[in-house]
Order: sequence, then structure tokens, then C-alpha cells
Amino acid sequence: MARLNDNYCKLKAGYLFPEIARRVNAFCEADPDGKARLIRCGIGDVTEPLPPAAIAALHAAADELATRDTFRGYGPEQGYPFLRAAIAQNDYRDRGIEIADDEIFVSDGSKCDCANILDILGDQNHFAIPDPVYPVYADTNVMAGHTGAAAPDGAFAGLTYLAGNAENGFVPPPPTTGKIDVAYLCFPNNPTGAVATRAQLAEWVAYALANDVLLLFDAAYEAYIQDPTLPRSIYEIEGARRCAIEFRSFSKNGGFTGVRCAFTVVPKELTATTADGTRLPLHGLWLRRMTTKFNGTAYIVQRAAEALYTPQGKAQVAALVAHYTGNAAILRQAAATAGLRVFGGENAPYIWASAPDGLSSWEFFDKMLTDANVVITPGSGFGRAGEGWFRISAFNSRKNATEVARRLADLLKTNAG
Amino acid sequence: MARLNDNYCKLKAGYLFPEIARRVNAFCEADPDGKARLIRCGIGDVTEPLPPAAIAALHAAADELATRDTFRGYGPEQGYPFLRAAIAQNDYRDRGIEIADDEIFVSDGSKCDCANILDILGDQNHFAIPDPVYPVYADTNVMAGHTGAAAPDGAFAGLTYLAGNAENGFVPPPPTTGKIDVAYLCFPNNPTGAVATRAQLAEWVAYALANDVLLLFDAAYEAYIQDPTLPRSIYEIEGARRCAIEFRSFSKNGGFTGVRCAFTVVPKELTATTADGTRLPLHGLWLRRMTTKFNGTAYIVQRAAEALYTPQGKAQVAALVAHYTGNAAILRQAAATAGLRVFGGENAPYIWASAPDGLSSWEFFDKMLTDANVVITPGSGFGRAGEGWFRISAFNSRKNATEVARRLADLLKTNAG
Repeated sequence: MARLNDNYCKLKAGYLFPEIARRVNAFCEADPDGKARLIRCGIGDVTEPLPPAAIAALHAAADELATRDTFRGYGPEQGYPFLRAAIAQNDYRDRGIEIADDEIFVSDGSKCDCANILDILGDQNHFAIPDPVYPVYADTNVMAGHTGAAAPDGAFAGLTYLAGNAENGFVPPPPTTGKIDVAYLCFPNNPTGAVATRAQLAEWVAYALANDVLLLFDAAYEAYIQDPTLPRSIYEIEGARRCAIEFRSFSKNGGFTGVRCAFTVVPKELTATTADGTRLPLHGLWLRRMTTKFNGTAYIVQRAAEALYTPQGKAQVAALVAHYTGNAAILRQAAATAGLRVFGGENAPYIWASAPDGLSSWEFFDKMLTDANVVITPGSGFGRAGEGWFRISAFNSRKNATEVARRLADLLKTNAG
Repeated sequence: MARLNDNYCKLKAGYLFPEIARRVNAFCEADPDGKARLIRCGIGDVTEPLPPAAIAALHAAADELATRDTFRGYGPEQGYPFLRAAIAQNDYRDRGIEIADDEIFVSDGSKCDCANILDILGDQNHFAIPDPVYPVYADTNVMAGHTGAAAPDGAFAGLTYLAGNAENGFVPPPPTTGKIDVAYLCFPNNPTGAVATRAQLAEWVAYALANDVLLLFDAAYEAYIQDPTLPRSIYEIEGARRCAIEFRSFSKNGGFTGVRCAFTVVPKELTATTADGTRLPLHGLWLRRMTTKFNGTAYIVQRAAEALYTPQGKAQVAALVAHYTGNAAILRQAAATAGLRVFGGENAPYIWASAPDGLSSWEFFDKMLTDANVVITPGSGFGRAGEGWFRISAFNSRKNATEVARRLADLLKTNAG
């Protein structure tokens, strides 16, 4: 008798983004004028075209596939050497961080990597997850059977939640009680936009080394860090090569959300323990996982990613990031001026603000939708600690970002008056 | 203390293709003249350029990403409607098979899909795996903890092996003893090239329905079936919608091994059982798996796949398949004429032949490499039942295929003399 994976039944039916889509659709049907004015700042998807260097690389690579002599079939599952070298050199070694080419594993997305990493870890591990945070960490642990059922507030038994709040600046410190084996960290954070300082990351690395904890460091928004004193990679912290895996993406710097390319860094010194107490490098396990369950990222896509590291590509990426960062500054300013408590928006493409007048996240979502015709993301969708907060995405045109800032100011003025 | 997934330690270190690469490299270093003559028929990778329709679609889609108005970011994780509709219409409904658009899930590869399908199935299931067969089925079950250790002959405790042999034409029938819950089937088979007849597949479907067994039907080589009496989809068999998932790929028809596009079919009637005995559709679980752990296949790649279904695309795919099928006929003829027992090569791109003179698979691999300077694939690399057999891939230029046929004939003539 074929049995299904019962853990899927523990997942909550209403995933955040489908629920947003449902409410937006209902609104649009009920209010055609509002629909016409609607501006979407909900999902963190880029809006601006791909850098010209990437477009040129896509065309050139497609032409290579058109003739027998330059055709390429299966590539190395872990990524082509040309891209692994460009990443390791530009993102790490040029910044004084020792990462070898073969510690870079190219993939088709950070979502996949953050989810698939569980494949190589034992189910005995106790996992710690920030709250609020990107829902994929928790959901994939539920699917893998690492949790019990969800409580009415949405928290899953068996996970340790690392609560962010205004007091800790949404950078939760390592837990002081309880035992954990693996911890997810995400800086710049989705959804709060918070970024850990060097001292805060050093505290996490020291904790990890002292307690034999593996850190899963999601740095998908690293390109938005403008402050030169903030760490962009966990490997800027001494000792991190022995306790951390880092995830990066081309989605939010090169605008690759529809092109699909990302990478995972697994240092060779990083080990974990077998049942008999032997320590083995995770590098070999991840290599085996990728070669057995993945067939590599499309050749043309890898060429497009490589093009982001050319001088022209770098300038175009910088301009894209500057565009979204400019939007973020406008939105952050509007929320702050309106008297909301605001995090993020400075070294991150997300603005995280408190809902006014004690409204819940979904209440303010509905108010923004119906009164301002702006789609935001309710903070409670990212975890209990997000209740009472909301996220605005800076991924938009400048015109839309300015208009959203204006509507937010208007709404909150009306509200206060 | 971070623990790794101990199941990975059960995997055999020497995966087939790395071992082939090691022996070929050693040969090339030792024999520069042989290296110059070397023809590779080892890995099943296509060699001919992408169809012009696909190239044109890649260029057009890349251009769409270059301007704001036509830019696309995140797409639906389960695939764009345009591609799901093209697949369901052309591959199924036009052939009288009832499959809805939303039963098609687009991915970046059949290897990934065949591996990831285990995510939604319970670990209590007992899995049956053909022997010989594509190694990914067994390896992913080992990784998922569904097996014990490997025996000296490479077989894993806890799996049921469905032995193929010359007597059953390498189409193993359903087991007559023992209890299984899930069975992999692969037709046209990799590596044997065997194709199940309609009666044979009907026997499997009847067995599955009678015993509540889930069939995982890998049809990646479906395009090579020339005989109109042979089933190209398991859904041609009455009742299969209630017991089978089908995997298909654009790798071997459109030559997409480096472009990365495939799909999985999950009919909505297909159910499996929860711990409390409830039957639930697997469709919803797979949808949840894909939306949570995957971010969709690249937009430009999906446009290229769609182009294979245009009239020009279909003609170009047919020409590609005819080219490789022509190679297969030449290679099959050579092996048969030399007196070997031969399977496949008629409705499949692989020729499966017995090693002469009682040689083992690896002994004949070494002989072909050193004496004929041809790389083949040792049958034992696909399982115990492959011992004494070898695979020749028809994915090559016509010139190379003809030359390999000539060298094979020469070698075996010398041998016999």
C-alpha cells in the first residue's frame, strides 16, 4: 500500500503569498477603479530589465548551442569552472576571503538550496529558525519530519524560534538556554531588512564553534549592504569556515528571479558528525547530493551569471541595486515621517514598519489595499514575531515607489486626523 | 552537535561515470595515439545542435527580458501555462490520452524529478527497482534512508530488485512474491533499450491497482519509440491514472541536456494513504513540494521547450530523433552481425549487447578502450543483472557511429580469429 509523506499534512494550507493573491483578486473584482490604481509591493520580485551584459551573454550562449562544434550538453552538476571561478574570485578572494573555486556549487536558486541542504543533514538535529523570516526554512523542516504539529499561532513543535523584535533590532542573538544543532540566519533579512553587525555575527560564530552548531547563512540580499562596516559574507568572521554554509543568489542583484541562478558555499573544513561520532566534511556530501539529484544549471544561464562579473556587468548591477536602494530610502523616509517604527530599507530592499493604531498585520494589509490601493506584505505571514508589522518591497519603478510613499503618508495623515 | 545524514555513508564511492572518466583519462595519458582516435559512446549525452526553433525562441525570450514592459521575474513554480498547455495537448490529448494542463509540472530535469518524488512519499514504503537501470533510483533511496547497507555485489538491503535478463527481454514482470508499495519502471529503458509492450504494461497496471502499488514511470526516451504498437505513455493503459506518475524530458528529443527542461505528470485521481488510512491525492502534495522547494524553470528555457511543439519544432525534433535512431540501427546491426546477443537500438537510443567470450562488463570495457579506442558503458554499472553486458550510446555523429560499428566488427573478428 503506497503511503504518502504524512508530514505534509502538518503544513498550514494558506501559505502567505497565495493568501495575498486571494485577497488582491477579491479586491480587484469588487473595485475596478482601485484595481486600476493598484501598486504591488507585496512579493519581493524585481521589476527592472536584465542588465545588458547578461542579455548579450544569453544571446551569445544560445548561438553556441546552434552549431555542432560549440554545442554543450550536460555540464558539471556543481557548475561550470568559469562561473565557479568568477564567483570565488570576485565575491570572496577579491574581498580578502579565502574561498576556493571548488567550494562554490552553482544551482538554479537559493530557495532550492536552502530547502535541499536538509538532504545531507541528519533528522536527529534540532533546528533553530529566526522569527520573523522567509517561510521556506520552517516549511521544509516540517516536510522533512523535523517537527510536530503546528500550534494555533502557527509555531511548530520541535523547532526553536529565534525571536526578532524592536529591542534586538530584529537581529536575534544565539539562544542562552536549550540545545540546538543547526541554525538558519538571514542577513540582510527577509522580511525585516535587518543586517547583523560584525560583532553580532562574531557572537553567532563563537557560539556555533563552542556548541558544535551548523549555521545556514542566507545572504541572498547581500548586494544591498551599502555600509562598509557591515559584513557581507559570514566568512568575513574568523572561524566561520568551520561552522557555516552560505547561500547566495543572482536574483536580487542581477535581477535573475526568472533566469534562475544561485550558489552555495561549502568550505572544505566544515564537518558534521556521523552516528559513530566520526567527523566528516559536508563538502563531499553536498557534492554527492548535487551530482545525484541535480543535473546542473542551464549553460546559457551560467554564461549570463558570469557576465555580471565583467566590468560592464558590475556597473550595470551596481546601477540596478542603486535604483532599488533609492526606492527603499524614499519608502523608509515616508514610513518614518508618518511616525511608524521602521527597520530595514538602508542596507536592504525591504522596509519593515509597525502597523499604526495597534492594527494587526492583516488588518493593515486590508486597509492599505482598500484605502491606498497598495499591496504590502503582512508581517505575521513571516512568523508570530511579525504580528503588528508589515513589509514594503522596494522592487518597483521609481515612479511607483514615490507614489506608494505619497499614498502611505496620505493614509496615515488621514488616519491621525 | 550537528549530525550529517548517515545514509550517505552507505553509498558506494565509485559512481559509474566517474569511474569511466578515471579509466579513460588514464588511457589517454598512457596512449596519445589512442587518445587521438578515441570515440566516446559512454555517457548518454546528445551531440547535435539544438533545433533552430528552440534557438530562435531563446533569442526572442532573452530580448523580452531586456525591456521593462516585457520583463518577467518569478514565474509559476509549476511551469508557465503556455508550456503546460502545449505539453498536455501535444503529448497527451492529441494522442487520445486524457491529461489536464494542470496535471503537468514543468521542471529543470527528469533526474531531479525522479529524485525529488521521494519527498512526498512515506519512508515506510517498500521500493522495487529494475535491475539493470539508471542508478539514480537506487542511490536516492539510499540517501533517503530506505535501505540497509550494500552487499558486496552492490545490492542494497531493503530494496526489491526486478531482474531483467535475456529470457524476459529485459522487461521484468511484476513480482509474484513479497510485498512492494512503489515500483520504478523505465521504458524505453536506460541502459537496455528494452520497451514494454502494451500487454506488459497492462500487466503492471493491473498488478499496481490490485496491490495498491504506485508506479513511477520514467519515459525520458519516449521519442525513440518508432513501433506504433508500443505504448509511449503509461496513461495509454486503462487505469494508469489511478496508479502512476510519469516523468518526461526534453533532453533526448530536443537535445536539451544542457538547456534543462523536463516535466512530471501527476493525475488528480492518483492517491496514496496517510497514517490513519485516509487516501489523499498526490497532486496536492507535489504542488506543495514544487512551490515550496523550487522556483520554476527559467522563462527563456520554457519558451524554448514550447517552440519544440510548433510545426517547425516538431519537424526538427523528428529529424534529430531520426538521426540518432539511424545511428542506433547501424550499431545494433554491427553488434548482431558480430554474433553478440543484442537488445535495444530499435525503439531506443541505446544498444545493449552481451560481452563476448565470457568477459565481464569491465573487462570488455577495457578491451574496447585499449584495442578499439571506443568508450562504452559497462553493464554491471547499472546493477548486478547487467554483468556481462555493455551499453553503446547512439548519441553521436553518423561518422562516429559508423566508425564505431566498423571497429566493433574488426575487434570481434580478430577476437574470433
